[in-house]
Amino acid sequence: MRREDAVLERIAAIVGRRNIPDGEVHVGDDAAVLAPIVGETLISTDVAVLGVHLDGSLFPLEDLGFKAVTSAVSDLAAMGGRPRAAVVAVTSPPGTDLEELHRGIADAAAMTECPIVGGDLVRGTDVSVAVTVLGETPGKGSVLRSGARPGDVILVTGPLGRSSAGLRRRRAGAPLDDPLVVAHRRPWPRLAEGIAARHAGVNAMMDLSDGLGIDLHRLANSSRVGFTLTDLPIAEGATEEEALGGGEDYELLMTTNDPDRLRAIFFSRGLREPLEIGVVVRDVAHRTWRDQKLDPTGWQHQL
Amino acid sequence: MRREDAVLERIAAIVGRRNIPDGEVHVGDDAAVLAPIVGETLISTDVAVLGVHLDGSLFPLEDLGFKAVTSAVSDLAAMGGRPRAAVVAVTSPPGTDLEELHRGIADAAAMTECPIVGGDLVRGTDVSVAVTVLGETPGKGSVLRSGARPGDVILVTGPLGRSSAGLRRRRAGAPLDDPLVVAHRRPWPRLAEGIAARHAGVNAMMDLSDGLGIDLHRLANSSRVGFTLTDLPIAEGATEEEALGGGEDYELLMTTNDPDRLRAIFFSRGLREPLEIGVVVRDVAHRTWRDQKLDPTGWQHQL
Repeated sequence: MRREDAVLERIAAIVGRRNIPDGEVHVGDDAAVLAPIVGETLISTDVAVLGVHLDGSLFPLEDLGFKAVTSAVSDLAAMGGRPRAAVVAVTSPPGTDLEELHRGIADAAAMTECPIVGGDLVRGTDVSVAVTVLGETPGKGSVLRSGARPGDVILVTGPLGRSSAGLRRRRAGAPLDDPLVVAHRRPWPRLAEGIAARHAGVNAMMDLSDGLGIDLHRLANSSRVGFTLTDLPIAEGATEEEALGGGEDYELLMTTNDPDRLRAIFFSRGLREPLEIGVVVRDVAHRTWRDQKLDPTGWQHQL
Repeated sequence: MRREDAVLERIAAIVGRRNIPDGEVHVGDDAAVLAPIVGETLISTDVAVLGVHLDGSLFPLEDLGFKAVTSAVSDLAAMGGRPRAAVVAVTSPPGTDLEELHRGIADAAAMTECPIVGGDLVRGTDVSVAVTVLGETPGKGSVLRSGARPGDVILVTGPLGRSSAGLRRRRAGAPLDDPLVVAHRRPWPRLAEGIAARHAGVNAMMDLSDGLGIDLHRLANSSRVGFTLTDLPIAEGATEEEALGGGEDYELLMTTNDPDRLRAIFFSRGLREPLEIGVVVRDVAHRTWRDQKLDPTGWQHQL
């Protein structure tokens, strides 16, 4: 057995699922084989690079793997779907602790019930983790960004800015188990909330990966509407700037013409009450926060 | 509109499909939404890195995108499946011609009928392209590596070594349109052959991505069998070493107890006749070529 095959076997033991459903084939063949997908099929890909998405001097390599998986799974949550499987393509320079990286990947896969069914591993200068998730929306009705209608109430699933605040605190010396630092290291995709929102018939939904200040514009662009942002739920320990401009909170942004129904469904499922933050308006150019024009602000990759 | 969104829009115009089927959503939302998958679902991921998988001083950047897509699609061919969709995650340093890279991606997607339905684009040191393909095997019966049985005839879909020979010729100054150089730049996944082989009931199949000298061992390991390699079909212009040890030919390796049926089905579909190269034997340790023990030889990534 040569080097690559030996490494792949150890990694397969870390990420591989113990109980593979009948008729499915996971890691080890040319492609994984899965039982039929129920309803609409969802697919999304996200790549996380060490030094861009995670500061390796402040956080363990495990966190890069964890975040890469959860940010991809969050895209399924944003459609109201549920995960079925993920594949992971990793590049790394010699000497990278690939087992540590894959422990983070495996943790996130287990916690989101999204089994890793395949992967690729190649040499590169960067440590990068490209995760593709496959999901399903039983029946139909995946929730798009483009469905917001004038008059809709805009809500989020939780207070914002925790991830950015955690990064700031870590830079100032806070330990890895500080609750805000954990919010940065171990974001949690809002899968149950996304499904509840779909069942409640929300008109539009997306996840807040780059910050409300830019993502709300994206939702409005897709739906060809404007918005009046009236309330900004700032997480405890975060600043207003972090709540508006900070990325990686992965809370869901939703619009609905029936917020009472949304609240009732969240309540019945034991989910935290969604928070109203504003309303959708017809005028595409009208985008305000505290009666001031709100320009897109948030984290964008420099390409 | 900020920089990332502007770049993404231009790229979406390059890779996006003009006619999106009813009820599907491709590039632009959190995840793509696809119509139901027929039968077994296949998923596989492959990452190609500039300087590792393609020498940027010898080949245009387009070729990296093209090869990344076709090597992933080849994994679907190897199961006897057909492509449904692909997503592409790209890392690149500032100044990379992302439009050129994506033209290669779009070419390969169009030629393999595998629409690009989503992607991610982030900054990195490397230019890397991680492609995940989603496929389907109508009904059941995806062909695995693990089904080879003692007595099976081993066949390949074509002569070997063209890609390696093309790389050698390019290094020696051959033009980009030299037929062997084209074989290296623009590999072709054997989709029609994979489906025909599945219909013919082959017992095991895989694609030759790292070279027969290592891939035949992998198939034998998965199936817990040995082999006697009797014939090595060397492509015109290639050497024996290139045919045995060169990767990226993407011909299919198959084993069957009914080679006449396989040949008849290939013939009736207008496909080139598959070539017999040996037989499967019961003794796992018996792995020979010209009556000599054959050790694994081929291209492996250095991790």
